[in-house]
Amino acid sequence: MTFKIDHRLAVDTTLVCSLKLSQVRLQNNSTFPWIILVPQVHGIKEMIELSENDQLQIFKEIMLASRVMNELFSPDKLNIANLGNVVSQLHIHVIARFKDDKAWPNPVWNSSFKAHYSEIEEQELIVALQDKFKAL
Amino acid sequence: MTFKIDHRLAVDTTLVCSLKLSQVRLQNNSTFPWIILVPQVHGIKEMIELSENDQLQIFKEIMLASRVMNELFSPDKLNIANLGNVVSQLHIHVIARFKDDKAWPNPVWNSSFKAHYSEIEEQELIVALQDKFKAL
Repeated sequence: MTFKIDHRLAVDTTLVCSLKLSQVRLQNNSTFPWIILVPQVHGIKEMIELSENDQLQIFKEIMLASRVMNELFSPDKLNIANLGNVVSQLHIHVIARFKDDKAWPNPVWNSSFKAHYSEIEEQELIVALQDKFKAL
Repeated sequence: MTFKIDHRLAVDTTLVCSLKLSQVRLQNNSTFPWIILVPQVHGIKEMIELSENDQLQIFKEIMLASRVMNELFSPDKLNIANLGNVVSQLHIHVIARFKDDKAWPNPVWNSSFKAHYSEIEEQELIVALQDKFKAL
């Protein structure tokens, strides 16, 4: 079967770019700088279900995404996680956290803090992310 | 400087075994099957701060820990995360989650669910984890 992104992930995020294995997608929530990586493999919910090559590749892409978020936002801490309790399609969160952000020091999931980017803000951020993914 | 485990991690967890890079430690909370990996490197808070070799090694150990938790507990979903908003010393959570556990589908952090293992339960679980880490 070919890869198809889960409907809820598609609604909650916007495509930034495609890496060798994953789609990079921006979370539609301006409260936190927050991207997800979605490996383009059908029917996988755990990293250990990926082939060994793909496991290595997703890890390289998580480290790349971490460096991108670190350089663009200079956060106090990165939060990196695969949860998938709600949407089981494998996706990995990479979030830039700040000591003065609205949820600190709690995790962002299930927090009630949600705000929307304006169209211009979102487009500028997507271009900045695309450029940094190309540069690193 | 030599590696020394953060005081709060030491209080909240019990040593299971040492891998090539990380200590494997059992969270002192019987509500969820929950271990953490703590790379034995001084002064690191992000995975991207590790050397390239150590990045690869921690990833191998996260995948190993994932397989151990998967085989021992057959969870509905693994939750794998590096947060570190409270304790900044780098540590990675690997948690076996079930659709009927107390926090599902929410994350376990900052949940109020906490229970203690009995001494015997804890010792049996540590032995089972040690055996599985050796076997895999």
